[in-house]
Amino acid sequence: MKDPIDFWFDFSSPYGYLMSEKLDTLAARHGRKVRWRPYLLGAVYKQLGSQPLPSIPMKGPYSLRDFQRTARFFGLPLRIPDAFPIPTQHAARAFYWLHERDCPMARTFAHAVFRRYFADGQDISQQDLVLDIAASVGADRAALAEALAGGELKTRLRAACDEALALGVFGSPYVMVDGEPFWGVDRLPQIERWLETGGF
Amino acid sequence: MKDPIDFWFDFSSPYGYLMSEKLDTLAARHGRKVRWRPYLLGAVYKQLGSQPLPSIPMKGPYSLRDFQRTARFFGLPLRIPDAFPIPTQHAARAFYWLHERDCPMARTFAHAVFRRYFADGQDISQQDLVLDIAASVGADRAALAEALAGGELKTRLRAACDEALALGVFGSPYVMVDGEPFWGVDRLPQIERWLETGGF
Repeated sequence: MKDPIDFWFDFSSPYGYLMSEKLDTLAARHGRKVRWRPYLLGAVYKQLGSQPLPSIPMKGPYSLRDFQRTARFFGLPLRIPDAFPIPTQHAARAFYWLHERDCPMARTFAHAVFRRYFADGQDISQQDLVLDIAASVGADRAALAEALAGGELKTRLRAACDEALALGVFGSPYVMVDGEPFWGVDRLPQIERWLETGGF
Repeated sequence: MKDPIDFWFDFSSPYGYLMSEKLDTLAARHGRKVRWRPYLLGAVYKQLGSQPLPSIPMKGPYSLRDFQRTARFFGLPLRIPDAFPIPTQHAARAFYWLHERDCPMARTFAHAVFRRYFADGQDISQQDLVLDIAASVGADRAALAEALAGGELKTRLRAACDEALALGVFGSPYVMVDGEPFWGVDRLPQIERWLETGGF
Protein backbone atom coordinates (compact mmCIF):
# COMPACT_ATOMS: atom_id res chain seq x y z
CA MET A 1 0.00 0.00 0.00
CA LYS A 2 1.65 3.19 -1.16
CA ASP A 3 1.43 6.47 0.74
CA PRO A 4 -1.37 8.83 -0.17
CA ILE A 5 -0.71 11.91 -2.26
CA ASP A 6 -1.09 15.23 -0.44
CA PHE A 7 -3.21 17.85 -2.20
CA TRP A 8 -2.89 21.30 -0.64
CA PHE A 9 -5.30 23.96 -1.91
CA ASP A 10 -7.29 27.07 -1.10
CA PHE A 11 -11.00 26.96 -1.98
CA SER A 12 -10.58 30.37 -3.62
CA SER A 13 -7.96 29.11 -6.09
CA PRO A 14 -9.08 28.52 -9.71
CA TYR A 15 -6.12 26.27 -10.46
CA GLY A 16 -6.87 24.43 -7.20
CA TYR A 17 -10.43 23.86 -8.42
CA LEU A 18 -9.17 22.48 -11.76
CA MET A 19 -6.78 20.15 -9.95
CA SER A 20 -9.59 19.00 -7.63
CA GLU A 21 -11.48 17.73 -10.67
CA LYS A 22 -8.53 15.72 -11.99
CA LEU A 23 -6.28 14.46 -9.22
CA ASP A 24 -8.36 11.71 -7.61
CA THR A 25 -8.94 9.94 -10.93
CA LEU A 26 -5.29 10.16 -11.89
CA ALA A 27 -4.20 8.89 -8.47
CA ALA A 28 -6.71 6.03 -8.56
CA ARG A 29 -5.32 4.84 -11.91
CA HIS A 30 -2.04 4.31 -10.06
CA GLY A 31 -3.57 2.74 -6.95
CA ARG A 32 -3.09 5.85 -4.87
CA LYS A 33 -5.35 7.80 -2.54
CA VAL A 34 -5.32 11.58 -2.20
CA ARG A 35 -5.32 13.44 1.10
CA TRP A 36 -7.13 16.76 0.59
CA ARG A 37 -5.57 19.54 2.66
CA PRO A 38 -7.43 22.85 2.43
CA TYR A 39 -5.48 25.78 3.85
CA LEU A 40 -5.37 29.55 3.48
CA LEU A 41 -3.14 31.15 0.87
CA GLY A 42 -3.42 34.33 2.95
CA ALA A 43 -1.07 32.73 5.49
CA VAL A 44 1.50 32.29 2.70
CA TYR A 45 1.06 35.82 1.37
CA LYS A 46 1.60 37.14 4.87
CA GLN A 47 4.74 35.06 5.30
CA LEU A 48 6.19 35.97 1.87
CA GLY A 49 4.98 39.55 1.79
CA SER A 50 3.23 38.73 -1.48
CA GLN A 51 -0.33 39.16 -2.68
CA PRO A 52 -3.01 37.30 -4.66
CA LEU A 53 -2.16 36.81 -8.35
CA PRO A 54 -5.09 38.87 -9.70
CA SER A 55 -3.92 42.01 -7.90
CA ILE A 56 -0.37 41.93 -9.31
CA PRO A 57 0.20 44.31 -12.26
CA MET A 58 0.49 42.56 -15.65
CA LYS A 59 0.37 39.08 -14.07
CA GLY A 60 -3.16 39.83 -12.83
CA PRO A 61 -4.81 40.45 -16.23
CA TYR A 62 -2.85 37.56 -17.71
CA SER A 63 -3.96 35.14 -15.04
CA LEU A 64 -7.63 36.02 -15.37
CA ARG A 65 -7.32 35.02 -19.03
CA ASP A 66 -5.23 31.97 -18.25
CA PHE A 67 -7.65 30.65 -15.59
CA GLN A 68 -10.41 30.47 -18.17
CA ARG A 69 -8.31 29.19 -21.05
CA THR A 70 -6.83 26.48 -18.81
CA ALA A 71 -10.34 25.44 -17.75
CA ARG A 72 -11.36 25.15 -21.41
CA PHE A 73 -8.17 23.19 -22.08
CA PHE A 74 -9.25 20.70 -19.39
CA GLY A 75 -12.88 20.71 -20.54
CA LEU A 76 -14.10 22.06 -17.18
CA PRO A 77 -16.61 24.84 -16.54
CA LEU A 78 -15.18 27.96 -14.92
CA ARG A 79 -16.25 31.51 -14.55
CA ILE A 80 -14.40 33.86 -12.26
CA PRO A 81 -16.95 34.98 -9.64
CA ASP A 82 -17.64 38.67 -9.03
CA ALA A 83 -16.21 38.27 -5.52
CA PHE A 84 -12.72 36.94 -6.19
CA PRO A 85 -10.51 36.06 -4.45
CA ILE A 86 -12.32 35.61 -1.15
CA PRO A 87 -11.49 34.36 2.37
CA THR A 88 -12.26 30.67 2.67
CA GLN A 89 -11.76 29.88 6.32
CA HIS A 90 -15.37 28.77 6.89
CA ALA A 91 -15.24 26.27 4.04
CA ALA A 92 -11.83 24.96 5.10
CA ARG A 93 -12.88 24.57 8.75
CA ALA A 94 -16.10 22.84 7.70
CA PHE A 95 -14.05 20.46 5.57
CA TYR A 96 -11.86 19.42 8.51
CA TRP A 97 -14.91 18.98 10.75
CA LEU A 98 -16.60 16.76 8.17
CA HIS A 99 -13.39 14.89 7.47
CA GLU A 100 -13.10 13.75 11.06
CA ARG A 101 -16.63 12.35 10.88
CA ASP A 102 -17.06 11.06 7.33
CA CYS A 103 -14.19 11.19 4.86
CA PRO A 104 -16.21 10.55 1.66
CA MET A 105 -18.75 13.18 2.75
CA ALA A 106 -15.93 15.70 3.22
CA ARG A 107 -14.72 14.97 -0.31
CA THR A 108 -18.22 15.42 -1.73
CA PHE A 109 -18.53 18.66 0.24
CA ALA A 110 -15.21 19.96 -1.11
CA HIS A 111 -16.20 19.27 -4.71
CA ALA A 112 -19.52 20.99 -4.08
CA VAL A 113 -17.84 24.07 -2.58
CA PHE A 114 -15.45 24.42 -5.51
CA ARG A 115 -18.25 23.97 -8.06
CA ARG A 116 -20.63 26.38 -6.31
CA TYR A 117 -17.90 28.99 -6.42
CA PHE A 118 -16.25 28.45 -9.80
CA ALA A 119 -19.08 27.01 -11.87
CA ASP A 120 -22.10 28.73 -10.27
CA GLY A 121 -20.44 31.94 -9.06
CA GLN A 122 -21.81 31.72 -5.51
CA ASP A 123 -19.95 33.49 -2.71
CA ILE A 124 -18.61 30.60 -0.63
CA SER A 125 -16.98 33.03 1.83
CA GLN A 126 -20.43 33.24 3.47
CA GLN A 127 -20.86 30.92 6.42
CA ASP A 128 -24.55 30.37 5.67
CA LEU A 129 -23.77 29.10 2.20
CA VAL A 130 -21.07 26.81 3.59
CA LEU A 131 -23.64 25.38 5.99
CA ASP A 132 -26.17 24.97 3.17
CA ILE A 133 -23.65 23.09 1.08
CA ALA A 134 -22.71 20.86 4.02
CA ALA A 135 -26.38 20.12 4.67
CA SER A 136 -26.93 19.34 0.98
CA VAL A 137 -24.31 16.58 1.13
CA GLY A 138 -25.84 15.09 4.28
CA ALA A 139 -24.10 16.84 7.17
CA ASP A 140 -25.76 17.94 10.40
CA ARG A 141 -26.18 21.66 9.80
CA ALA A 142 -26.76 22.68 13.41
CA ALA A 143 -23.83 20.67 14.74
CA LEU A 144 -21.52 22.15 12.12
CA ALA A 145 -22.76 25.69 12.86
CA GLU A 146 -21.95 25.16 16.52
CA ALA A 147 -18.51 23.80 15.68
CA LEU A 148 -17.76 26.76 13.40
CA ALA A 149 -18.57 29.12 16.26
CA GLY A 150 -16.10 27.41 18.59
CA GLY A 151 -12.34 27.69 18.90
CA GLU A 152 -11.36 24.12 18.10
CA LEU A 153 -11.82 24.35 14.33
CA LYS A 154 -9.94 27.64 14.26
CA THR A 155 -7.01 25.89 15.91
CA ARG A 156 -7.35 22.96 13.51
CA LEU A 157 -7.14 25.19 10.43
CA ARG A 158 -4.33 27.28 11.90
CA ALA A 159 -2.39 24.06 12.47
CA ALA A 160 -2.94 23.10 8.82
CA CYS A 161 -1.61 26.49 7.68
CA ASP A 162 1.40 26.19 9.98
CA GLU A 163 2.07 22.70 8.68
CA ALA A 164 1.88 23.92 5.09
CA LEU A 165 4.39 26.69 5.76
CA ALA A 166 6.69 24.31 7.64
CA LEU A 167 6.64 21.92 4.65
CA GLY A 168 7.42 24.74 2.22
CA VAL A 169 3.93 24.65 0.68
CA PHE A 170 3.34 28.08 -0.83
CA GLY A 171 0.70 27.74 -3.55
CA SER A 172 -2.53 26.19 -4.67
CA PRO A 173 -2.66 23.54 -5.92
CA TYR A 174 0.47 22.12 -4.33
CA VAL A 175 0.77 18.37 -4.59
CA MET A 176 3.28 16.14 -2.78
CA VAL A 177 3.97 12.66 -4.16
CA ASP A 178 6.35 10.68 -1.95
CA GLY A 179 8.10 13.87 -0.89
CA GLU A 180 8.29 15.34 -4.41
CA PRO A 181 6.49 18.71 -4.65
CA PHE A 182 4.46 19.81 -7.68
CA TRP A 183 3.10 23.35 -7.79
CA GLY A 184 0.29 24.18 -10.18
CA VAL A 185 -2.31 22.32 -12.20
CA ASP A 186 0.08 22.60 -15.16
CA ARG A 187 2.27 20.02 -13.42
CA LEU A 188 -0.37 17.28 -13.93
CA PRO A 189 1.59 15.65 -16.80
CA GLN A 190 4.69 15.52 -14.57
CA ILE A 191 2.67 14.07 -11.68
CA GLU A 192 1.32 11.44 -14.05
CA ARG A 193 4.77 10.46 -15.24
CA TRP A 194 6.05 10.45 -11.65
CA LEU A 195 3.28 8.02 -10.66
CA GLU A 196 3.95 5.85 -13.71
CA THR A 197 7.70 5.66 -13.26
CA GLY A 198 8.27 6.18 -9.53
CA GLY A 199 10.28 9.32 -10.27
CA PHE A 200 12.25 10.57 -13.24
CA MET B 1 0.85 33.09 -44.77
CA LYS B 2 0.03 33.27 -41.08
CA ASP B 3 1.68 35.72 -38.71
CA PRO B 4 4.79 34.58 -36.91
CA ILE B 5 4.68 33.60 -33.25
CA ASP B 6 6.48 35.95 -30.86
CA PHE B 7 8.83 34.31 -28.39
CA TRP B 8 9.99 36.65 -25.63
CA PHE B 9 12.73 35.37 -23.35
CA ASP B 10 15.74 36.23 -21.21
CA PHE B 11 18.91 34.23 -21.89
CA SER B 12 19.19 33.68 -18.13
CA SER B 13 15.82 31.92 -17.90
CA PRO B 14 15.84 28.10 -17.58
CA TYR B 15 12.22 27.80 -18.71
CA GLY B 16 13.10 30.13 -21.61
CA TYR B 17 15.91 27.76 -22.58
CA LEU B 18 13.57 24.76 -22.49
CA MET B 19 11.05 26.61 -24.65
CA SER B 20 13.81 27.59 -27.09
CA GLU B 21 14.47 23.90 -27.74
CA LYS B 22 10.82 23.13 -28.49
CA LEU B 23 8.98 26.08 -29.99
CA ASP B 24 10.43 26.26 -33.54
CA THR B 25 9.65 22.60 -34.23
CA LEU B 26 6.13 22.90 -32.87
CA ALA B 27 5.51 26.08 -34.88
CA ALA B 28 6.91 24.54 -38.07
CA ARG B 29 4.48 21.60 -37.77
CA HIS B 30 1.74 24.21 -38.09
CA GLY B 31 3.38 26.20 -40.87
CA ARG B 32 4.40 29.02 -38.56
CA LYS B 33 7.62 30.91 -38.04
CA VAL B 34 8.83 32.14 -34.65
CA ARG B 35 10.18 35.63 -33.98
CA TRP B 36 12.76 35.38 -31.19
CA ARG B 37 12.69 38.44 -28.92
CA PRO B 38 15.37 38.43 -26.23
CA TYR B 39 14.80 41.04 -23.55
CA LEU B 40 15.79 41.65 -19.93
CA LEU B 41 13.65 40.31 -17.11
CA GLY B 42 15.38 42.88 -14.91
CA ALA B 43 13.30 45.56 -16.64
CA VAL B 44 10.14 43.71 -15.57
CA TYR B 45 11.33 43.18 -12.00
CA LYS B 46 12.09 46.88 -11.77
CA GLN B 47 8.63 47.75 -13.09
CA LEU B 48 6.80 45.27 -10.85
CA GLY B 49 9.01 45.68 -7.80
CA SER B 50 9.59 41.92 -7.92
CA GLN B 51 12.74 39.82 -7.98
CA PRO B 52 14.16 36.72 -9.67
CA LEU B 53 12.38 33.49 -8.77
CA PRO B 54 15.40 31.80 -7.12
CA SER B 55 15.72 34.57 -4.53
CA ILE B 56 12.10 34.36 -3.35
CA PRO B 57 11.64 32.38 -0.09
CA MET B 58 10.01 28.93 -0.56
CA LYS B 59 9.41 29.51 -4.29
CA GLY B 60 13.19 29.74 -4.80
CA PRO B 61 14.13 26.26 -3.54
CA TYR B 62 11.06 24.81 -5.27
CA SER B 63 11.95 26.34 -8.60
CA LEU B 64 15.55 25.12 -8.54
CA ARG B 65 14.09 21.62 -8.22
CA ASP B 66 11.38 22.26 -10.80
CA PHE B 67 13.82 23.64 -13.41
CA GLN B 68 15.72 20.37 -13.41
CA ARG B 69 12.72 18.08 -13.18
CA THR B 70 11.03 19.93 -16.04
CA ALA B 71 14.18 19.57 -18.14
CA ARG B 72 14.20 15.81 -17.50
CA PHE B 73 10.49 15.71 -18.35
CA PHE B 74 11.31 17.27 -21.74
CA GLY B 75 14.41 15.10 -22.19
CA LEU B 76 16.71 18.11 -22.31
CA PRO B 77 20.06 18.59 -20.54
CA LEU B 78 20.07 21.27 -17.84
CA ARG B 79 22.26 22.13 -14.94
CA ILE B 80 21.83 25.38 -13.09
CA PRO B 81 25.12 27.26 -13.46
CA ASP B 82 27.05 28.49 -10.42
CA ALA B 83 26.42 32.06 -11.58
CA PHE B 84 22.62 32.21 -11.79
CA PRO B 85 20.71 34.31 -12.64
CA ILE B 86 23.01 36.67 -14.51
CA PRO B 87 22.68 39.85 -16.57
CA THR B 88 22.32 39.02 -20.26
CA GLN B 89 22.46 42.36 -22.02
CA HIS B 90 25.56 41.49 -24.06
CA ALA B 91 24.00 38.31 -25.42
CA ALA B 92 20.69 40.04 -26.17
CA ARG B 93 22.38 42.98 -27.93
CA ALA B 94 24.56 40.60 -29.94
CA PHE B 95 21.44 38.71 -30.97
CA TYR B 96 19.77 41.84 -32.36
CA TRP B 97 22.96 42.85 -34.17
CA LEU B 98 23.21 39.42 -35.79
CA HIS B 99 19.53 39.32 -36.55
CA GLU B 100 19.74 42.45 -38.66
CA ARG B 101 22.50 40.84 -40.71
CA ASP B 102 21.67 37.15 -40.86
CA CYS B 103 18.52 35.80 -39.32
CA PRO B 104 19.44 32.06 -39.34
CA MET B 105 22.83 32.91 -37.87
CA ALA B 106 21.14 34.82 -35.03
CA ARG B 107 18.99 31.76 -34.32
CA THR B 108 22.02 29.47 -34.25
CA PHE B 109 23.76 31.98 -31.97
CA ALA B 110 20.80 32.08 -29.58
CA HIS B 111 20.68 28.28 -29.32
CA ALA B 112 24.42 28.25 -28.70
CA VAL B 113 24.17 30.88 -25.95
CA PHE B 114 21.41 29.00 -24.14
CA ARG B 115 23.27 25.69 -24.39
CA ARG B 116 26.61 27.13 -23.29
CA TYR B 117 24.87 28.50 -20.23
CA PHE B 118 22.41 25.79 -19.26
CA ALA B 119 24.10 22.66 -20.60
CA ASP B 120 27.79 23.59 -20.22
CA GLY B 121 27.52 25.98 -17.26
CA GLN B 122 29.54 28.78 -18.91
CA ASP B 123 29.02 32.35 -17.74
CA ILE B 124 27.36 33.99 -20.74
CA SER B 125 27.19 37.33 -18.91
CA GLN B 126 30.82 37.84 -20.03
CA GLN B 127 31.16 39.87 -23.21
CA ASP B 128 34.22 37.89 -24.32
CA LEU B 129 32.31 34.64 -24.21
CA VAL B 130 29.42 36.22 -26.13
CA LEU B 131 31.91 37.29 -28.80
CA ASP B 132 33.47 33.81 -28.89
CA ILE B 133 30.06 32.22 -29.36
CA ALA B 134 29.18 34.67 -32.12
CA ALA B 135 32.47 33.97 -33.87
CA SER B 136 31.88 30.22 -33.53
CA VAL B 137 28.65 30.51 -35.51
CA GLY B 138 30.31 32.57 -38.23
CA ALA B 139 29.92 36.20 -37.13
CA ASP B 140 32.56 38.90 -37.53
CA ARG B 141 33.96 39.10 -34.00
CA ALA B 142 35.65 42.48 -34.37
CA ALA B 143 32.63 44.15 -35.95
CA LEU B 144 30.36 42.80 -33.22
CA ALA B 145 32.80 43.94 -30.50
CA GLU B 146 32.73 47.43 -31.95
CA ALA B 147 28.93 47.42 -32.14
CA LEU B 148 28.65 46.25 -28.52
CA ALA B 149 30.80 49.20 -27.44
CA GLY B 150 28.51 51.70 -29.17
CA GLY B 151 25.20 53.21 -28.14
CA GLU B 152 23.00 51.94 -30.94
CA LEU B 153 22.63 48.38 -29.66
CA LYS B 154 21.90 49.68 -26.18
CA THR B 155 19.04 51.69 -27.62
CA ARG B 156 17.87 48.67 -29.63
CA LEU B 157 17.67 46.45 -26.55
CA ARG B 158 16.07 49.18 -24.45
CA ALA B 159 13.41 49.52 -27.12
CA ALA B 160 12.76 45.77 -26.99
CA CYS B 161 12.34 45.93 -23.20
CA ASP B 162 10.01 48.92 -23.50
CA GLU B 163 7.98 47.10 -26.15
CA ALA B 164 7.73 44.02 -23.94
CA LEU B 165 6.43 46.07 -21.01
CA ALA B 166 3.99 47.94 -23.27
CA LEU B 167 2.63 44.62 -24.54
CA GLY B 168 2.21 43.28 -20.99
CA VAL B 169 5.04 40.78 -21.39
CA PHE B 170 6.32 40.04 -17.89
CA GLY B 171 8.01 36.63 -17.94
CA SER B 172 10.24 34.20 -19.76
CA PRO B 173 9.25 32.39 -21.85
CA TYR B 174 6.28 34.49 -22.92
CA VAL B 175 4.78 33.45 -26.23
CA MET B 176 2.19 35.36 -28.28
CA VAL B 177 0.16 33.48 -30.87
CA ASP B 178 -2.14 35.78 -32.86
CA GLY B 179 -2.53 38.06 -29.84
CA GLU B 180 -3.03 35.23 -27.33
CA PRO B 181 -0.39 35.25 -24.57
CA PHE B 182 1.10 32.09 -23.06
CA TRP B 183 3.45 32.42 -20.10
CA GLY B 184 5.76 29.55 -19.23
CA VAL B 185 7.10 26.44 -20.91
CA ASP B 186 4.31 24.52 -19.17
CA ARG B 187 1.88 26.18 -21.59
CA LEU B 188 3.34 24.24 -24.54
CA PRO B 189 0.36 21.83 -24.68
CA GLN B 190 -2.02 24.81 -24.78
CA ILE B 191 0.06 26.49 -27.50
CA GLU B 192 -0.06 23.27 -29.47
CA ARG B 193 -3.83 23.01 -29.20
CA TRP B 194 -4.18 26.71 -30.07
CA LEU B 195 -2.16 26.18 -33.26
CA GLU B 196 -4.16 23.06 -34.13
CA THR B 197 -7.56 24.60 -33.58
CA GLY B 198 -7.05 28.33 -34.15
CA GLY B 199 -8.14 29.04 -30.56
CA PHE B 200 -10.23 27.19 -28.00
